[in-house]
Amino acid sequence: RINGDRLWDSLMEMAKIGPGLRGGNNRQTLTDEDAEGRRLFQSWCEKAGLTMGVDTMGNMFFRREGTDPDALPVYVGSHLDTQPTGGKYDGVLGVLGGLELVRTLNDLNIKTKHPIVVVNWTNEEGTRFAPAMLASGVFAGIHTQDWAYAREDAKGKKFGDELERIGWKGDEAVGARKMHALFELHIEQGPILEIEGKDIGVVTHGQGLWWLQITLTGKDSHTGSTPMPMRRNAGLGMARITELVHTIAMAHQPSAVGAIGHCDVYPNSRNVIPGKVVFTVDFRSPDLATLNAMKAELEKKAPEIAKELGLGIEIEEAGHFDPVTFDEGCVTAVRNAAERLGYSHRNIISGAGHDACWVNRVAPTAMVMCPCVDGLSHNEDEEISKEWAAAGADVLLHAVLETAVI
Amino acid sequence: RINGDRLWDSLMEMAKIGPGLRGGNNRQTLTDEDAEGRRLFQSWCEKAGLTMGVDTMGNMFFRREGTDPDALPVYVGSHLDTQPTGGKYDGVLGVLGGLELVRTLNDLNIKTKHPIVVVNWTNEEGTRFAPAMLASGVFAGIHTQDWAYAREDAKGKKFGDELERIGWKGDEAVGARKMHALFELHIEQGPILEIEGKDIGVVTHGQGLWWLQITLTGKDSHTGSTPMPMRRNAGLGMARITELVHTIAMAHQPSAVGAIGHCDVYPNSRNVIPGKVVFTVDFRSPDLATLNAMKAELEKKAPEIAKELGLGIEIEEAGHFDPVTFDEGCVTAVRNAAERLGYSHRNIISGAGHDACWVNRVAPTAMVMCPCVDGLSHNEDEEISKEWAAAGADVLLHAVLETAVI
Ligand SMILES: NC(=O)NCCC(=O)O
Ligand SMILES: NC(=O)NCCC(=O)O
Repeated sequence: RINGDRLWDSLMEMAKIGPGLRGGNNRQTLTDEDAEGRRLFQSWCEKAGLTMGVDTMGNMFFRREGTDPDALPVYVGSHLDTQPTGGKYDGVLGVLGGLELVRTLNDLNIKTKHPIVVVNWTNEEGTRFAPAMLASGVFAGIHTQDWAYAREDAKGKKFGDELERIGWKGDEAVGARKMHALFELHIEQGPILEIEGKDIGVVTHGQGLWWLQITLTGKDSHTGSTPMPMRRNAGLGMARITELVHTIAMAHQPSAVGAIGHCDVYPNSRNVIPGKVVFTVDFRSPDLATLNAMKAELEKKAPEIAKELGLGIEIEEAGHFDPVTFDEGCVTAVRNAAERLGYSHRNIISGAGHDACWVNRVAPTAMVMCPCVDGLSHNEDEEISKEWAAAGADVLLHAVLETAVI
Repeated sequence: RINGDRLWDSLMEMAKIGPGLRGGNNRQTLTDEDAEGRRLFQSWCEKAGLTMGVDTMGNMFFRREGTDPDALPVYVGSHLDTQPTGGKYDGVLGVLGGLELVRTLNDLNIKTKHPIVVVNWTNEEGTRFAPAMLASGVFAGIHTQDWAYAREDAKGKKFGDELERIGWKGDEAVGARKMHALFELHIEQGPILEIEGKDIGVVTHGQGLWWLQITLTGKDSHTGSTPMPMRRNAGLGMARITELVHTIAMAHQPSAVGAIGHCDVYPNSRNVIPGKVVFTVDFRSPDLATLNAMKAELEKKAPEIAKELGLGIEIEEAGHFDPVTFDEGCVTAVRNAAERLGYSHRNIISGAGHDACWVNRVAPTAMVMCPCVDGLSHNEDEEISKEWAAAGADVLLHAVLETAVI
């Protein structure tokens, strides 16, 4: 069993870097806080005897040698970056759970046949630079590195430049590493495990996603002196498309969700009718046909709304992954581990996207989930218990051991 | 007659300060650009022999002496601040039209019984610091100066501090000046004069306004893993209130308008359901009962929308003025001037708010309007012709003369 107190202490220590305003974290990707979090993680890993490799996307790999020089490593990890108003566990638990697993193997002097590598993937959250899971996506060959480097944040800063600036651009080629398997521990970010009183979610599938960034172009003009029939109000178009997205999602729930989280209004002045709005639709479903049907309905109806209001419309695909089915062998290893350790468990579909979803394209992969209070995530009040964290890390340890020993 | 070329040259010269990205201006109130614009205006006024006074709200007054030491001055002017993506004429024409009037009197060596004072009012636009017409509002006793000083911009900077910072806080008490009359020349900012081919709008009334700043509070949570029924989506609430505002305005148009120009979404991340939104409703009508009925309908229905979505709601009055009836004598002076000069004209209601609307509370006041292309304002493409500007300034000159000579 892992050391639950040690894991918890590390989680609390990491949470001091990039503190939020309400007890959570703001450690967005490629900020100075991200760099500081990476340095802390590096120091812990090196103290645990691991050897660092960093690739040109800033992904960090810490290796514990195995006994068989020809065996491919078993990877374990997640991400240290957070939302602007994020929690202390989303991603971090998976990375530090991986570190705790290694510390436990060291304590018990356990040798594995396969090396074990703890990984921190760059820019999982996708807030500062869309899309989410950018660096694991490059690793899995989904995006080119050049394309990833050219992603811009809201201030026009480029991913590649910011990675250099914070000093975490390594020299390893991205995706060069071959994996025996990868396991990711993550909080559920939804309410199911807590409601059902289960310790562990055995993640069998992941929802697919579409991010559609919409730009509506009207005409900025005076709110007081422009007659109603002459207005080309891009804000009104955004309102109608927001309602449309909600209607589409409601028609497909519970096996789909949809919302708009990002909205920018120009010029954003009280007495100017918005001449331009830019916002991003987020659609998800575990069912590919449903996911694509939602997108198709939006692509048909949003232009009709725009036309009726005299607005120009542009719809850009800003992020996408298909629903994922995780590797049967790895999923079984997770289920066996929970069973062996006596934790209650159930199969679960991940509502969120994870680095494991991309890695699953190039290596056998599975995920372990633990509950979080009220299913709340992407919120500074995100909370879990020390016991939940420990159970998740225990299952991670045993699933990895089952895979790495033989 | 005034010198149309000289007026135009001054307009173009001022437009070089705080240039916009598309040919207009970004010279928002109490920015460095505002300070620079004020210095240029000061240098021109002093060259024309005028004496400066500045009050503690930063309002600038330039005086040309009259022949009767006991006569109150006739005031003429508008504002030099602009929208973030504003035009070159909104406000500026009224200030520089006043200067041109004085230059013309100097050229012709005309003495008036009453002194003439050209004024630049601080923060007419209200974009950076709400409400609009802030400093003329303090002048007219509508707001206290302390309250005005405490207004904050989006970054939390205070009006009072920024006024000091740019070096334009004077020492004159605000509102101490008594006026014989005030005239403001302004572009229409609407389409009526151009459509009807009229040179001059004789402004008899001004629309009233309500700015209602609404804060909706939901719960920020994950867009992927939060089930639809558990969501408290503040962005969806904003969308529904946007539609409500439009519906209310459409029910009362053409004698009312309504829109939302300002929207801030928190945390504004693609994969976070908005936990908070702050936006401002802008309602206007020339009819007081209609204006207040629109507000009342919003105040009744917006909380119902919030409740249905599980959102908290706060509605704050962020700006207000009642419909205005301008002074009969001053309005007649404007009409007479247009008539005498042979310009086509019609009575018109101002769709926008103006400093003259507040001053009208404490002194006889009227406005002169000239057309603008496509009725477009609060847009960098705002355009007028040199002839329209000259006609407006001519009428201003003759209305002021009629009032200042006797
Ligand atoms: N786990 C997580 O919150 N990932 C961010 C990507 C997403 O939006 O699903
Ligand atoms: N004239 C003008 O655009 N004033 C700004 C105040 C308003 O919104 O009416």
